[in-house]
Amino acid sequence: MESTQLLDILGNENRRKILQLLASRPCYVGEITERIGLGAKAVLGHLDMLEQNGMIRADTNERRRKYYQITENLKLEVFVSPYSYTVETSTVQQHPSGDGVEETSPVQKDDAKAVDALKELNRKLFELESGRRELAKQQRNIEGEMTDVMAQCIDWVHEVAHDYLEADILMTVIREPQNRRSLSMSLGLAEYFIEEQISSLIERGVMYERQINNRQLLTLIDE
Amino acid sequence: MESTQLLDILGNENRRKILQLLASRPCYVGEITERIGLGAKAVLGHLDMLEQNGMIRADTNERRRKYYQITENLKLEVFVSPYSYTVETSTVQQHPSGDGVEETSPVQKDDAKAVDALKELNRKLFELESGRRELAKQQRNIEGEMTDVMAQCIDWVHEVAHDYLEADILMTVIREPQNRRSLSMSLGLAEYFIEEQISSLIERGVMYERQINNRQLLTLIDE
Repeated sequence: MESTQLLDILGNENRRKILQLLASRPCYVGEITERIGLGAKAVLGHLDMLEQNGMIRADTNERRRKYYQITENLKLEVFVSPYSYTVETSTVQQHPSGDGVEETSPVQKDDAKAVDALKELNRKLFELESGRRELAKQQRNIEGEMTDVMAQCIDWVHEVAHDYLEADILMTVIREPQNRRSLSMSLGLAEYFIEEQISSLIERGVMYERQINNRQLLTLIDE
Repeated sequence: MESTQLLDILGNENRRKILQLLASRPCYVGEITERIGLGAKAVLGHLDMLEQNGMIRADTNERRRKYYQITENLKLEVFVSPYSYTVETSTVQQHPSGDGVEETSPVQKDDAKAVDALKELNRKLFELESGRRELAKQQRNIEGEMTDVMAQCIDWVHEVAHDYLEADILMTVIREPQNRRSLSMSLGLAEYFIEEQISSLIERGVMYERQINNRQLLTLIDE
């Protein structure tokens, strides 16, 4: 799914509530309207939108009652700072049958066994969660460093650029090498409008236009 | 900032465009309307909202022209799967003056020096970015494992729970230990409505109510 689609979906409080509810378990429409405290028509509208985007799926049970469940494993990351705005959506892969799955799969109907298995899984979940938090902390540190480097870049860009447009071009290319088309789209300006600045930056040896992974890209980094 | 606030902000395409633009550099209102291709009134509405939420700040230059810039370093992470819905917002700390900052700070007006400094910073940025990507990959792996463990939990919860409400209570507490109030809020149900199930789960030895970090919490994990 596109990040913009996902942000549009998550921008609505009631859709967030519906997803939160479905993340606890598959639900019938009746349950959803009752829990969300919203009319059936509005709920159905949201469910339709979520279904069309492929986030949820409708199934019917043996008594032909329709229920909804989440289909995707999506991770969305947004980072906003004075020097960067990045949005990334990725699909998280489940490991269909890892180690320890067999021994705890529910074949036994013994309640005590089930309770023990559940507690064991919960402990495992907590260990994973603390690992996840540690990685998230490291990531925030790197992002802090990146923001700092970007701040320094801005200072230097103002020394190097001859006008605002050159500064914008440089900052965009510093974030990620661009071809002329992606650069013009990212700046929201027609290609012919930035040609002169690109040529001047290349002539002055500030920027290069070269092959990276078989694409002709503008970059500040030489080979 | 609250995650829900941030999601509301990012749920609008034009606000995303404004933030993206301001992330490249501070801008005057005129520049913003021109780039976004939206009427001044609509743009001012969005800018007001962003300012009230503390995401951007207005300043005036020496000629009293008003410009806007992003003030926050925010990281938003959303994870949606059939078994979990988590939203986290964190503030990324900048390192005001790390190593290497001094040597590259713009005191020299020599263009060649500035270009070299910029290229060096860009290389550094790329190294940080590849580190960030690596951590993100590890994190997605952990999240995949967590999703897998949650899937197993759901199977066992259905063995242990006597009704849907008990299943919902267990799944919520497995994700994170809860007090009675937070549990009732998270389920969207009044406290008295879930008392019976809580008592029964505790009596049956499935769930505990105990002190964790000075808070009385419901949990499946014993000491």
